[in-house]
Amino acid sequence: LSTHGDALAPALVGIDWGSSNLRVALMDAQGRVLQRRESTAGVFSVAGGAFAAALWPLCGDWLAAHPRLPLLACGMIGSRQGVLEVPYLPCPAALGQVAQALVAAPLAWPAGTAGEGAVLHIVPGLQCGDAAQGHDVMRGEETQLLGVAQEHGRLLVLPGTHSKWVERGQAGQVLAFQTYLTGELFELLRQHSSLARVMGEPQWTPQAFDKGVAQAQVEPLEGLLFKVRTAGLMERFAATALQDYLSGLLIGAEIKAGLRRFARPLGVEPVMVLGQATLALRYARALAALGHEASVISGDVVFSGLATIAHQAGLGAGARH
Amino acid sequence: LSTHGDALAPALVGIDWGSSNLRVALMDAQGRVLQRRESTAGVFSVAGGAFAAALWPLCGDWLAAHPRLPLLACGMIGSRQGVLEVPYLPCPAALGQVAQALVAAPLAWPAGTAGEGAVLHIVPGLQCGDAAQGHDVMRGEETQLLGVAQEHGRLLVLPGTHSKWVERGQAGQVLAFQTYLTGELFELLRQHSSLARVMGEPQWTPQAFDKGVAQAQVEPLEGLLFKVRTAGLMERFAATALQDYLSGLLIGAEIKAGLRRFARPLGVEPVMVLGQATLALRYARALAALGHEASVISGDVVFSGLATIAHQAGLGAGARH
Repeated sequence: LSTHGDALAPALVGIDWGSSNLRVALMDAQGRVLQRRESTAGVFSVAGGAFAAALWPLCGDWLAAHPRLPLLACGMIGSRQGVLEVPYLPCPAALGQVAQALVAAPLAWPAGTAGEGAVLHIVPGLQCGDAAQGHDVMRGEETQLLGVAQEHGRLLVLPGTHSKWVERGQAGQVLAFQTYLTGELFELLRQHSSLARVMGEPQWTPQAFDKGVAQAQVEPLEGLLFKVRTAGLMERFAATALQDYLSGLLIGAEIKAGLRRFARPLGVEPVMVLGQATLALRYARALAALGHEASVISGDVVFSGLATIAHQAGLGAGARH
Repeated sequence: LSTHGDALAPALVGIDWGSSNLRVALMDAQGRVLQRRESTAGVFSVAGGAFAAALWPLCGDWLAAHPRLPLLACGMIGSRQGVLEVPYLPCPAALGQVAQALVAAPLAWPAGTAGEGAVLHIVPGLQCGDAAQGHDVMRGEETQLLGVAQEHGRLLVLPGTHSKWVERGQAGQVLAFQTYLTGELFELLRQHSSLARVMGEPQWTPQAFDKGVAQAQVEPLEGLLFKVRTAGLMERFAATALQDYLSGLLIGAEIKAGLRRFARPLGVEPVMVLGQATLALRYARALAALGHEASVISGDVVFSGLATIAHQAGLGAGARH
């Protein structure tokens, strides 16, 4: 680690504020993470607009020590349910446009805490589509994408509750993207559906997952889901394998749709999967089974993205370059 | 109404015993319904195997007056959760095979009630598919199908929680069928998903339903569901129209898959939709919008089916012909 110049001196508080989690990082002028903390004070769990009170326990000491530290946040904090609704930027959208469109929201710290308050800079989400065919939106993923170097390729997949497939341009700008409800459907079906009745405690069963991926290539998902139930009834798979079968069907259907929309027209290889390791490896396994090259970035890139945006916007870390 | 012979004299108790409802009918030798009753004592809500105790309040008086009246039941009562697990009949399956495969389960009436007990005859469900591609099953629908005359055509759709598309042969036998999870997905998404957050009290909005049907023909369902949420966020449709948009997407995707699997290879026209009127009319509307002839039977055919099976098996109504 180099300590010359302002490196390792706090220069920015990066905030990833999603619907169910709040994660913060103290970063230096080079965008390196010095400290990191998180809580479950996601946007949907903060009542009565008390966002400053939710944030203070995680970074109040940093701000007491460095009162002028800029705060840069991304995610659902910029939604209607957040501190302030930040308009979506239309695609194609480049880093420079994102950095120019930051919106500042004043925060008043809770009574009795040090300092008068601060300004929370919020990264805008992105939008594509139109009124005729419907829109698609993201909040937070645009920042993750800006944390991934251009050389990682033009087609990225960010699996999760609302999985995103993203097409980037040569200059790293986001050209288009598509949301799939894969993770949310998995949770709904696993927890609340008639399929759940036949499922046992999951034990990783690759052949059940692979079978699901393969079947999803040849039949529409709507007609396959009931087969998870009959696979339990008829003991085609063990009860402990049925979550993996369902996971394979859902991920397989998403990949089929995503490849058809993006990879084939673009002729793009490889697909870069960006996310939590276990889930990202499922996507990579499914892509490989379909003969498609895939790589995985499972590191935490959102803070790199926030540092990149701050730099471009001349906030904190960036101001010192 | 004719009253000659044994007509209008009780000859059979027909029982439609599904997972969440219990419906019974007292029928004469011609299969006409004389009385009808129902309760919410569905199979999943009967604890500790107390099926006789659940049935007695609905038809105890009929059986006290006519102790030798036969009882014929269909539905989930023949499943692992029911009074006795009745093996599925493989497809193709004809009426004669169904009637020969009835399974008799003795019922002991609750202490203090009249009579010693009775025998419950249970209609077997049907099965198709194989271990390689997965099975499909029905319990109860086979009886509804036997209540629909052959001249109503070869391709039938029974919409619902687990919607069924059924191909019949020239002699009315069930050749193949396919389950779609449409109704269950609608309820899960309407009640428990992130889409539910943007939905208002539903008001029938045909243009939202029709748009959903149309979009489902050109894009896979997995990529369309999130558009219900953005349609709310972007005010593409009123909040009160979003359930109809979702309904159109789901029904449209089912119809696309069903037509591709059955109608096109068979060259079959029209599609007969069999079910509760409001839902059946949605299917007919969607089929019409796609240029497909459709008819609706919204009457209650399960008791006709039970009478037909009883007749063939020589039970009650049938024994007197």
